[in-house]
Amino acid sequence: METLNVALGERSYPIYIGSGLLARKDLLAPHLESSRAVIITNDVVAPLYLQALRAALPSKPQLEVVLPDGEDNKTLAVWAGIFDRLLQARCDRGTTIIALGGGVVGDIAGFAAACYQRGVPFIQVPTTLLAQVDSSIGGKTAVNHPLGKNMIGAFYQPRVVIIDTDTLKTLPDRELRAGVAEVIKYGLIRDSEFFGWLEQYLSRLLSRDETALAHAIARSCRNKADIVAQDEREGGPRAILNLGHTFGHAIEAGIGYGRWLHGEAVAAGMVMAADLSCRLGWLSKEELARIEAIVAAAGLPLQSPADLDEVRFLELMAIDKKVQSGRVRFVLLKGIGEATVTDEVPATLIGEMLRTRRARG
Amino acid sequence: METLNVALGERSYPIYIGSGLLARKDLLAPHLESSRAVIITNDVVAPLYLQALRAALPSKPQLEVVLPDGEDNKTLAVWAGIFDRLLQARCDRGTTIIALGGGVVGDIAGFAAACYQRGVPFIQVPTTLLAQVDSSIGGKTAVNHPLGKNMIGAFYQPRVVIIDTDTLKTLPDRELRAGVAEVIKYGLIRDSEFFGWLEQYLSRLLSRDETALAHAIARSCRNKADIVAQDEREGGPRAILNLGHTFGHAIEAGIGYGRWLHGEAVAAGMVMAADLSCRLGWLSKEELARIEAIVAAAGLPLQSPADLDEVRFLELMAIDKKVQSGRVRFVLLKGIGEATVTDEVPATLIGEMLRTRRARG
Repeated sequence: METLNVALGERSYPIYIGSGLLARKDLLAPHLESSRAVIITNDVVAPLYLQALRAALPSKPQLEVVLPDGEDNKTLAVWAGIFDRLLQARCDRGTTIIALGGGVVGDIAGFAAACYQRGVPFIQVPTTLLAQVDSSIGGKTAVNHPLGKNMIGAFYQPRVVIIDTDTLKTLPDRELRAGVAEVIKYGLIRDSEFFGWLEQYLSRLLSRDETALAHAIARSCRNKADIVAQDEREGGPRAILNLGHTFGHAIEAGIGYGRWLHGEAVAAGMVMAADLSCRLGWLSKEELARIEAIVAAAGLPLQSPADLDEVRFLELMAIDKKVQSGRVRFVLLKGIGEATVTDEVPATLIGEMLRTRRARG
Repeated sequence: METLNVALGERSYPIYIGSGLLARKDLLAPHLESSRAVIITNDVVAPLYLQALRAALPSKPQLEVVLPDGEDNKTLAVWAGIFDRLLQARCDRGTTIIALGGGVVGDIAGFAAACYQRGVPFIQVPTTLLAQVDSSIGGKTAVNHPLGKNMIGAFYQPRVVIIDTDTLKTLPDRELRAGVAEVIKYGLIRDSEFFGWLEQYLSRLLSRDETALAHAIARSCRNKADIVAQDEREGGPRAILNLGHTFGHAIEAGIGYGRWLHGEAVAAGMVMAADLSCRLGWLSKEELARIEAIVAAAGLPLQSPADLDEVRFLELMAIDKKVQSGRVRFVLLKGIGEATVTDEVPATLIGEMLRTRRARG
């Protein structure tokens, strides 16, 4: 087992990474506020891992909430329904909410924990690669709005993140690949050595080699924890974690949540950001080609969806959370391993890129 | 003008109290994140003060949201509707949300500010006595759930609280009296000298004597700011601010939000808490009589509503936020000016008190 720390003063917490951790009572117990706990999961994960997590608790959960699976359920309505259940079960401020599942479950459950009685203790038990390397760490919680991804939410840190790598054994291939997109992201934004490792060992990751997965998860988590510790509420450097996300969120909202997985949209978004960086002369053609190659090798999309035209794309980007004073801020690359944030990109270049990178229908 | 400070480290903020402050551009401007601001108010306050606040902004507001008045509108649905408006108006993280109104407006707008894009700058401009002395200070924001008052919310501090005492000139008498309930509360929980002053000058407060009002508001705000600075998230001493609120919230939820004003329910709740304290031998009969006398003189209820029976009352209290490990925690008095929190009250005493203090139908 590897232990990392997210250093946030009094809100600091450990990340445990390893095999068989779901059953480890000793990891969970010290982080529970009381014997009362609620597990929030979804209808795909529940049959696989709910019983194991239940058994790891010191006593029977006060409540189990099984949400419908999928990004299209990351809504205010689904989130609001959780409060009915929590209140009916007489959950109080000492009840710990545990999220068991992928990014959607973690985001909704975390946002519910942030707001129930103005905040109750929260624990993340991520079961998808994407949640393990990215969304479970750093305290971003949210639900989607029809007009924009993750538009309603809170910064709310968990007390511990427990990553049982065994849960990846049951993860569908498509979900695994989506998670790889966020892994590649860390290499691109700040860890060129890791990017090199990924180019060499991607096939092992995709074939679920345990050593390779454990390395990729730990390295990703370390990068994420470093950045979050520097900038918890995204006032500055944390924004580079959004590489590919301005484009990706526009894709997700534009074609309807759930049609593309988040990681798929981010993959296409990263290629778009790399393309734009190349047009600005910040990234070489060779580097762009390496990025396209690894995204393609991971089986992830290199282009935005055919049914999302340029006008609509620009509209959707205009309501991204990174917009400031009406100007869209882009996370771009100054080379593999170095990201930068800018709002000074000529509109003509953006237009050219959008037209080039749109799939033919 | 009087200036107080809520000392919360990097989240510290000033409270300005005085006449004519609504028009003071110089008070507002330094706390705006950018030139973009949104005013959230209600349909009673808007015709009275919206134009003045609009004129005090450096530029035209990006958006004005006029909510329906009343506690029965402090719902998730009304709150969720604000996000549609904010997104349609392209509000971003640099947009400051300003609450103009009473406690309901402040609570909903503050909770919207806490969650929009995971938090945008927030300013309180309270226009009722209750909001000026209590709800606008300290960062508690929330909406109600049919099963319990303020059950969904966040701790989210404003950047400044601007209290224009002139706004009380248009406040309905019933609202003024409801605000007096929270003023009396400060005397009861920690300021016996102020309680003595209130006994002497209550009639001046009720006749809106400007000097008396200014004194009562400043003294209340100072008490509130002191307690909040000690315990921002109600881990300990802040709980005494809830004197009368466990009973009061049960009344509000039990008879339907909006039938009694919050301050009316708190007034009856404070008498109930004092009665219970007296039954425990902690408060003398003479002190209880003084409390009943001032509540009566303020024209506030001394009894719980006739249509809320003991069984239902106990049920409602069991889902109060102060419940811990299934035990209701009561804020009680050890004398006028000294509050204490306990979960060790014999059920028989609670039952006796509830039966005695219930109005005959």
